[in-house]
Amino acid sequence: MDVAKLIQSNNTKIVFILLDGLGGLPLDGKTELETANKPNLDGLAQISACGLHIPVGYGITPGSGPGHFGVFGYEPLRYEIGRGVLEALGLGVELQKTDVAVRCNYSTIKEGIIIDRRAGRIPTEKNIQITQILSEKIREIDGVNIILKPGKEHRFCLVFRFENNISEREAMVKDTDPQKEGKAPLDPEPLNNESIKVAKIAKKFIEMAREILKNEEKANFVLLRGFSALPSLPSFYERYGLKACSIAVYPMYRGITKLLGMDTISVEGDIREEVEVLKEVYKEYDFLFVHIKKIDSFGEDGNFDGRVKKIEEFDQYLPGILSLNPHVLVITGDHSTPALMKSHSWHPVPLLLKSPYVLGGVCNAFTERECLKGELGIIPATAIMPLVLANSLRLRKFGA
Amino acid sequence: MDVAKLIQSNNTKIVFILLDGLGGLPLDGKTELETANKPNLDGLAQISACGLHIPVGYGITPGSGPGHFGVFGYEPLRYEIGRGVLEALGLGVELQKTDVAVRCNYSTIKEGIIIDRRAGRIPTEKNIQITQILSEKIREIDGVNIILKPGKEHRFCLVFRFENNISEREAMVKDTDPQKEGKAPLDPEPLNNESIKVAKIAKKFIEMAREILKNEEKANFVLLRGFSALPSLPSFYERYGLKACSIAVYPMYRGITKLLGMDTISVEGDIREEVEVLKEVYKEYDFLFVHIKKIDSFGEDGNFDGRVKKIEEFDQYLPGILSLNPHVLVITGDHSTPALMKSHSWHPVPLLLKSPYVLGGVCNAFTERECLKGELGIIPATAIMPLVLANSLRLRKFGA
Repeated sequence: MDVAKLIQSNNTKIVFILLDGLGGLPLDGKTELETANKPNLDGLAQISACGLHIPVGYGITPGSGPGHFGVFGYEPLRYEIGRGVLEALGLGVELQKTDVAVRCNYSTIKEGIIIDRRAGRIPTEKNIQITQILSEKIREIDGVNIILKPGKEHRFCLVFRFENNISEREAMVKDTDPQKEGKAPLDPEPLNNESIKVAKIAKKFIEMAREILKNEEKANFVLLRGFSALPSLPSFYERYGLKACSIAVYPMYRGITKLLGMDTISVEGDIREEVEVLKEVYKEYDFLFVHIKKIDSFGEDGNFDGRVKKIEEFDQYLPGILSLNPHVLVITGDHSTPALMKSHSWHPVPLLLKSPYVLGGVCNAFTERECLKGELGIIPATAIMPLVLANSLRLRKFGA
Repeated sequence: MDVAKLIQSNNTKIVFILLDGLGGLPLDGKTELETANKPNLDGLAQISACGLHIPVGYGITPGSGPGHFGVFGYEPLRYEIGRGVLEALGLGVELQKTDVAVRCNYSTIKEGIIIDRRAGRIPTEKNIQITQILSEKIREIDGVNIILKPGKEHRFCLVFRFENNISEREAMVKDTDPQKEGKAPLDPEPLNNESIKVAKIAKKFIEMAREILKNEEKANFVLLRGFSALPSLPSFYERYGLKACSIAVYPMYRGITKLLGMDTISVEGDIREEVEVLKEVYKEYDFLFVHIKKIDSFGEDGNFDGRVKKIEEFDQYLPGILSLNPHVLVITGDHSTPALMKSHSWHPVPLLLKSPYVLGGVCNAFTERECLKGELGIIPATAIMPLVLANSLRLRKFGA
């Protein structure tokens, strides 16, 4: 059920630690969490409510957008983030409601045919250089501001900033990437009557970029995908009455939480710096979200030991977090990223919830297999926030 | 979520073994699975993901149709197979899209009143004999071909084969069985404007059959129920991109899987012969379904020991199946059939999924009680196929 109508406010504090890509699979019989020496996490699991959550659905491997939306209680199938928006957030663009964001590739075109969709994966330095040139030469089109941001290798993002707010329908323009080499690029066709305006600007942008890049050996063309505007979402405060902040090193996660109206706090460094910031701003918020990235990154690299070490590193900072004595502390991930798979996966994610109102005494450690025994069971990610709110006594009784 | 839009293809092989009516209940403290000596299944459970599935819903006892649809990922409440269709499939009629299938009873009528709805359960030999006579005398009605097939005792099935395809609505004709003795048979009334044509043919069939059977002592009338056409379903290939075959001894299960567009392979014999065929055709398919019947049959008979022996027999063939080394192996049932109940039941069904991407090390044996501890939890039957597809790396990531 939608808990919004049961919300009551109080002065409780909630700390929500997200260890990105937390869940793993066994290598030589033990998972990353089972291998790590983490006395603090294991001790905490013994007195907490544990379980596992399913991010989107059985067998579904989530991207970062759906993975985060789920744990924040926003049904991932209902609330989707456009690919262009996610790319822009990842590159640190502060998107506004007037924006259409697009994921782009530099590519190689010859006699009207795409011969390399990724322009030979040009070096990132080259990308930065030509994106700079494009930025200087295309500042606006028909009064629409153009914002460009280089990514890695051939990738960059493009934002059309209009004067007025842009709806999701107005951003619905067809990808120009033909998805295969040997084909002509597609036109940025409007997918409905409302998106004609955006499609027109996109077409002009492509023509201008082509002219500017014509003498480039490899990156002489651009392909545009994932046209999207900011999704319209009820904010975290509207839904839960929580004054929330997000502490994250990577722009993508600040961006996602900003979509939900959280205050976002940029941190340079890693776990240590994030925990320091958590302590600094602790008094100012009801709900403090801390995003820790590296366990996922090492998973994507297939680096089992790296994941183990990062979990152990986090374990050392746990007493500092516990010393804040929040009413509710949650530790979980947005999805699993087993080193074995070198990618996100569909596997349920270990979940720990500490509050004064749990059974405890059920699990011996914070691992996938111990969490299976836990008092929370295997639950959908969207069940976490109702449990958090309940454990912070922020939900009224339902019915008389 | 509907996984159709996430499907990607690869060369993985999936073997899906369905032990019909697998789940049981304890007699003297142990279930059939707990009593059976089955070292191979138990060893496999130790390294697999285990759990239980709920075929249709809490407390719902499924028939064979919904039981199979669920494990194949076709929501049983959305996709229903008509009773006439299921009866015809069970009797081995190769139904076409031009057919209306009807379950029939021979019955006894006297002065316009049904005095025995089952014609004293005439012997099957008698049924075969009079069905043969009806077949010869009623080959067609108004250009519609008539196909009759005897079942057991008083049961038979009737198929009207039209020239053109018949929709489900066109087949909607009211049962003629008054459900109680001492009443007159009902008219085969059309249930909508589109089914007038079928109702008319049915009425003529009843009149002709009555005339032919008038001198029979007991089986002097026919009652018609469950008028139905083939349901319109997305095929297994359309939904999952899997080239699939079904290996089954009983026509009913070949029929059900044929509805889903699988190639069906008829086998004479039992488990040994089915496993031989599995090996023969293994290279030709992505998804190989093997239906094993007898564990259910013994359950229906209340034969606890028979079920135990069949489970033990299957266990002996398991190494042969494992030697094929499929990427994903599933072993489960379509529903439970505890010997204690002598019938299908609503109890969750043990489920085992082997793949390179499972935790394992959670369950000690393949039994109802051990599966309760398993990493899959208790899941709806419709979750099995998404998990199978994920474990065979056939599902793309959802969202960026």
